[in-house]
Amino acid sequence: MEACGVLTRSTMFLPTDLVYEYSPLRKLAFTAKSLHGNKRKLYTVACAKDNNSNDEKNLQLQQQKPATLDFSGEKPPTPILDTINYPIHMKNLSTKELESLADELRAEIIYGVSKTGGHLSASLGVAELSVALHHVFNTPEDRIIWDVGHQAYPHKILTGRRSKMHTIRQTSGLAGFPKRDESLHDAFGAGHSSTSISAGLGMAVGRDLLGKSNSVIAVIGDGAMTAGQAYEAMNNAGYLDSNLIIVLNDNKQVSLPTATVDGPAPPVGALSKTLTRLQSSRKLRQLREAAKGITKQIGGVTHEVAAKVDEYARGMVGGSGATLFEELGLYYIGPVDGHSLKDLVYIFEKVKAMPAPGPVLIHIITEKGKGYPPAEIAADKMHGVVKFDPKTGKQIKPKTPTLSYTQYFAESLIAEAEKDGNIVGIHAAMGGGTGLNLFQKQFPTRCFDVGIAEQHAVTFAAGLATEGLKPFCAIYSTFLQRGYDQVVHDVDLQKIPVRFAIDRAGLVGADGPTHCGAFDTTYMACLPNMVVMAPSDEAELMHMVATAAAIDDRPSCFRFPRGNGIGSMLPPNNKGTPLEVGKGRVLEEGSRVAIMGYGTIVQSCIAAGELLRKLGISATIVDARFCKPLDGELIRRVAQEHEVLITVEEGSIGGFSSHVSHFLALSGLLDGNLKWRAMMLPDRYIEHGSPKDQIEEAGLAPKHIAATVLSLIGENKDALHLLH
Amino acid sequence: MEACGVLTRSTMFLPTDLVYEYSPLRKLAFTAKSLHGNKRKLYTVACAKDNNSNDEKNLQLQQQKPATLDFSGEKPPTPILDTINYPIHMKNLSTKELESLADELRAEIIYGVSKTGGHLSASLGVAELSVALHHVFNTPEDRIIWDVGHQAYPHKILTGRRSKMHTIRQTSGLAGFPKRDESLHDAFGAGHSSTSISAGLGMAVGRDLLGKSNSVIAVIGDGAMTAGQAYEAMNNAGYLDSNLIIVLNDNKQVSLPTATVDGPAPPVGALSKTLTRLQSSRKLRQLREAAKGITKQIGGVTHEVAAKVDEYARGMVGGSGATLFEELGLYYIGPVDGHSLKDLVYIFEKVKAMPAPGPVLIHIITEKGKGYPPAEIAADKMHGVVKFDPKTGKQIKPKTPTLSYTQYFAESLIAEAEKDGNIVGIHAAMGGGTGLNLFQKQFPTRCFDVGIAEQHAVTFAAGLATEGLKPFCAIYSTFLQRGYDQVVHDVDLQKIPVRFAIDRAGLVGADGPTHCGAFDTTYMACLPNMVVMAPSDEAELMHMVATAAAIDDRPSCFRFPRGNGIGSMLPPNNKGTPLEVGKGRVLEEGSRVAIMGYGTIVQSCIAAGELLRKLGISATIVDARFCKPLDGELIRRVAQEHEVLITVEEGSIGGFSSHVSHFLALSGLLDGNLKWRAMMLPDRYIEHGSPKDQIEEAGLAPKHIAATVLSLIGENKDALHLLH
Repeated sequence: MEACGVLTRSTMFLPTDLVYEYSPLRKLAFTAKSLHGNKRKLYTVACAKDNNSNDEKNLQLQQQKPATLDFSGEKPPTPILDTINYPIHMKNLSTKELESLADELRAEIIYGVSKTGGHLSASLGVAELSVALHHVFNTPEDRIIWDVGHQAYPHKILTGRRSKMHTIRQTSGLAGFPKRDESLHDAFGAGHSSTSISAGLGMAVGRDLLGKSNSVIAVIGDGAMTAGQAYEAMNNAGYLDSNLIIVLNDNKQVSLPTATVDGPAPPVGALSKTLTRLQSSRKLRQLREAAKGITKQIGGVTHEVAAKVDEYARGMVGGSGATLFEELGLYYIGPVDGHSLKDLVYIFEKVKAMPAPGPVLIHIITEKGKGYPPAEIAADKMHGVVKFDPKTGKQIKPKTPTLSYTQYFAESLIAEAEKDGNIVGIHAAMGGGTGLNLFQKQFPTRCFDVGIAEQHAVTFAAGLATEGLKPFCAIYSTFLQRGYDQVVHDVDLQKIPVRFAIDRAGLVGADGPTHCGAFDTTYMACLPNMVVMAPSDEAELMHMVATAAAIDDRPSCFRFPRGNGIGSMLPPNNKGTPLEVGKGRVLEEGSRVAIMGYGTIVQSCIAAGELLRKLGISATIVDARFCKPLDGELIRRVAQEHEVLITVEEGSIGGFSSHVSHFLALSGLLDGNLKWRAMMLPDRYIEHGSPKDQIEEAGLAPKHIAATVLSLIGENKDALHLLH
Repeated sequence: MEACGVLTRSTMFLPTDLVYEYSPLRKLAFTAKSLHGNKRKLYTVACAKDNNSNDEKNLQLQQQKPATLDFSGEKPPTPILDTINYPIHMKNLSTKELESLADELRAEIIYGVSKTGGHLSASLGVAELSVALHHVFNTPEDRIIWDVGHQAYPHKILTGRRSKMHTIRQTSGLAGFPKRDESLHDAFGAGHSSTSISAGLGMAVGRDLLGKSNSVIAVIGDGAMTAGQAYEAMNNAGYLDSNLIIVLNDNKQVSLPTATVDGPAPPVGALSKTLTRLQSSRKLRQLREAAKGITKQIGGVTHEVAAKVDEYARGMVGGSGATLFEELGLYYIGPVDGHSLKDLVYIFEKVKAMPAPGPVLIHIITEKGKGYPPAEIAADKMHGVVKFDPKTGKQIKPKTPTLSYTQYFAESLIAEAEKDGNIVGIHAAMGGGTGLNLFQKQFPTRCFDVGIAEQHAVTFAAGLATEGLKPFCAIYSTFLQRGYDQVVHDVDLQKIPVRFAIDRAGLVGADGPTHCGAFDTTYMACLPNMVVMAPSDEAELMHMVATAAAIDDRPSCFRFPRGNGIGSMLPPNNKGTPLEVGKGRVLEEGSRVAIMGYGTIVQSCIAAGELLRKLGISATIVDARFCKPLDGELIRRVAQEHEVLITVEEGSIGGFSSHVSHFLALSGLLDGNLKWRAMMLPDRYIEHGSPKDQIEEAGLAPKHIAATVLSLIGENKDALHLLH
């Protein structure tokens, strides 16, 4: 029962120098102190079962939500949730019952995710919101679009998928994000941020064209407001004036705390200041004016809503004009306490009943990790977790002998930056995910988190490079797609030396196809000026960081996967040595058969070589290193000296293998009897699952490579044997 | 000398129902009446040489700028401009001389562009701005970044390129956009919109890191504020707080009037309403408050600026809070009359002198086409023009026997939409450029211009499709890059049937590499669910529009080029017939050699076949039609029946040819003696120039194809002959 209360605070993130003090005098409560902004602030976590706390600041929240959660690790009792299979079963619940339902959802999610891992705190933050939405609106007729989608666990539980939640993110299990194929209640798939308003506007306009009258609700928050697409969509929504409900779930995050490497940074956009100001303003007069404004704009129907807003002015949450959204043409309501089911239900019902409100933005304030103290106080809010002990929140991280590629990248970039003061790092709200938090710690003035804004990140890096700096722009393969035009137009076309560190290249396991880095080699290697490379192990990654640092007359990129290194010997002090650009290397000399890998799949090529050796076939194994420029000399020699050439990559069609094929053709090397085959990701999306299952599904395991060789040299029987 | 005055008006665009009435009583003046918003408004164009006009509305503008421009078609006298080769020569000019310089620039540009064609009106709108910037700031040390870049003609003239302006957009001539290779004064290349603030912020941060003190100025406007990247950058600029000057050139355009097919639509974003409101507000009190606010924010140094702003409140331009920009963390100054050199110079000097203003946004109001009446009154403002008669503005459009592919696309889409009420059109500020203006005319409620916002356009289309509508999203190849992540994540991954009409595919002539559609086949065909096709002529385009309309279980796209059709027989009523998906066609049966084209390059393949026939070689000519799914059966047959197979496309590596090569390899068809060669755009950017020169440079003319065949079948001598 420890620490089962609520945490009140006025800062956006808990500072990292927080000190927790358990107070034995106040049973089941503790305080946390922090030095923040040169002022000592007191954070108090009061246990909900101990209502003796006189802390005024806590009082209000505690009155709203008496927490009764149980984090014992036993399956929590869920009497109300047990009666809910679909939203239709929630319609007659009282507010009190809805509140209990939200609590039960929270307990269920904490219990469930402690066993499966997954996204935790975002879902905890929207327990009340999910209940309120499904109580008021009727999916699937009404459309609820969850932006990014990692907060959709309560939604999944309430829409017929409770019994499968234990399979989430696992092979053949539920997806970690909303997915149209999975449920009619998932109006739109997600995974990348800031798409919900665009999709929702499309649905709203479509509804109008077809003469229907359902509601469309886009739930956006958690940093997604820093991406330009959200503005494009709001701007267009303001113009088209369709009825559309945007719920801005303001959990005070502008930068996603993907803190796999280190804690989160403070939010990075000016917008966060605005939202903070909105929240902190308590001027009754201003808010009354805003309320009047809303009344005027929406008409008589909303008098009550306006009155409600007025009420907020006297309450715990305040707000001024919210002019930013109004300037974009939206009707602004809020801020609303996103953990007050009563208020949420009230406002949703009123907005739903309005005949023609146009686009409405309801600004709600929630707390990420709400209701689970270990998440509330964690630096990363326990955003994405592996299995953990529900009593303590302590994650059960498997001990591994090696670090992640991400960490090796960060270490070697730091090593480069120590030698070269012009190296700077840029990431898009992914300090933890890209490892640049480590870089930032070392070089606080040389690291830039621009928010979820890949487009800007790329052009910003180009601007830095024109001044003579050496920017490393670290973006996941799948997210770099969002900055593609900027890569083409602002970097490659102008031959500006921006270095792209493309993390999460290839299959990514539990996150599934939304996060799979399948296309980067294809869309980067077609660009004329780009140097395109991929390391076969972590030592090579360090050398490629050094290579990219050294290439200063053109852009370059290198891709590396999710997951851990293989334990290769690292260069001294993690400082790589620049490779000769456009030169691959032969790892093993064999005969008849050559297997040429690009990227970490080279390890599978080596393993395939071992399988083949056992069958008496000696294969040449090549680490291509570069997709562009290709090592023509090496490819020519290998093609001439072998009967069979297999190119292997963990990427889509159009990438490394395609470049090799064109080189072979142009050189006349395909005119003879060389058998060339390309092995790559298949032409379909690979669902989420374990990395092993995904590689199996993709047909890129060592046995597949070996079997391909055997079938080509006419030993099909052995090939079949290998595959079983 | 007719109509050489200024046009005053309060609407954003001249309505299309404008009626011009020449008034013989008021010499050299005419009025234009329009029914707009149910109110009759009077537009008065008064001749600057006839200052007798008592029209109060005109008085102010006329007093500011006595126009002395000469549109006779003779080379205008430019006594001051003749003394300016570089900005350094402008430093000692008086305000009066600077004003004359701006006028001379305008005359020079009108004279020059009338002979070359190019972007006209955007440059006319920024004549004073360009002069003021180069008078106050010192390029190349100070960086001026011209967003989009089509307004940079005055800048080019003032920075050492005057003598080459007659070569603009021509082969080996000056580029139509700023280009870093072309001049040290071009701080950043452009062509796509909304990148300037990002690049400028990078330069500002880079300057700070390197301890320099130059100014960085991003000039953005002309619709570029609807793109999300501008918000991402402003948000980040507000946070980083570097000294950066953003000039918002508010020429009342949110949608670019690329009116090659029809006139422009009214601006499409809520933002335009905001900007209009800013302009139209004249409440002195409000502006004084804003001025006070600025004083407080920036500090004592800016008292004068604030006073100046205050002055504007009483003047011709008004402004309210400009809160949108302030919410994003920028210091807002304005609106400022962008045609008042005195005011521009004053404000730039003050802002330049501020020690640490942080990011400042100076909102200036200009008129696109300013000073050239034919441009001012044209529906498209004469945004992009061919050669024209300077006296009348009448463009000398060459008569062509066929229409553009864009028009054939629009016509056939209209034909489909007449049969199917669910078809809707979406474009991103390119109603004219994509032909959807024609569609909109026919189906005003079924066409959506979302502004320069390709990301939103794509996801918005996906939302529409989920409701059962059939969206055709018409975007240029080069601009679809900006919506790439949305194509992957919101459309293809979810297998949502959005149809992409990819205009300007391949080389684009005068616009050059920034607008070249090189990469679309590569980045679209790697997506698992996408149907990817390209018509070989305009009739095929119409069939593919019908095919895309019929494909309702997955996304599809078709690419077609800039330029005109070949005169092929169109289907009745322009209504195409759906093609069998994944089936190509043989156009000519030959022997030994097969040439397989993808897209309109098929016409060059046919021409190559004719060249070869004259040499006694009969080639099989195949129109592939589909890149995905490939016509495996046809490719197999062709590969088996010929010695040589040439695949030809006007696109980058990784596209059609790569897909063919993988099919050939997997089918074992490359294991034997087939000689396969791929012809595609070379691995470099092709500079602007005539289409003919570009194709020559790319090596994709019929003679190149024929020569490739000849060299492969061992008749090199003939091949060489062909190439000369």
